[in-house]
Amino acid sequence: MSEEKLAEWRTQIDDIDREMVTLLARRFQITREVGEWKAQNGVPPVDPEREKRQVARLQERAAETGLSADFLERFLRIIIDEVVSHHRAIRDEDFEAPDPL
Amino acid sequence: MSEEKLAEWRTQIDDIDREMVTLLARRFQITREVGEWKAQNGVPPVDPEREKRQVARLQERAAETGLSADFLERFLRIIIDEVVSHHRAIRDEDFEAPDPL
Repeated sequence: MSEEKLAEWRTQIDDIDREMVTLLARRFQITREVGEWKAQNGVPPVDPEREKRQVARLQERAAETGLSADFLERFLRIIIDEVVSHHRAIRDEDFEAPDPL
Repeated sequence: MSEEKLAEWRTQIDDIDREMVTLLARRFQITREVGEWKAQNGVPPVDPEREKRQVARLQERAAETGLSADFLERFLRIIIDEVVSHHRAIRDEDFEAPDPL
């Protein structure tokens, strides 16, 4: 085991991080569309039932892969909070600049 | 635009989340090996220079994809904190149960 091995692991980690950023960017593109749809249809930004199902499903998946439930909860929490804040911003934009027609 | 569209977006989001959990699990497998290597070689669990480079590189990538720098910082912070706590646990196990040979 050598410094080269460490460098190789770090390259693998950096590749994973890049993939995660790509997935996150795609995820926020989709949730932006969801946010616009919700604002147009008067649907509240937060859907606690949906959140509960999401968290439960991913906790199952995390358990299979050996990820800590506590870690996964924190991980999802910051993503969901960001999405909800985007949804609120979209809704408030709609209120501030209503379509004149 | 209909409820079906919302269901379709949610399926896409769930697929992304599953992929992210898979990537995270793989990432922690690699960092576990890094942690063991660090413990065996007396290398400290935290490497502030490496962290700075990681964050800077991902911030660049995030900017390209439109992700908020602030969100990405929080996202990375919980991952790095989890890794460092794993590394500390590995190191402490080594101290608590030293190889009798």
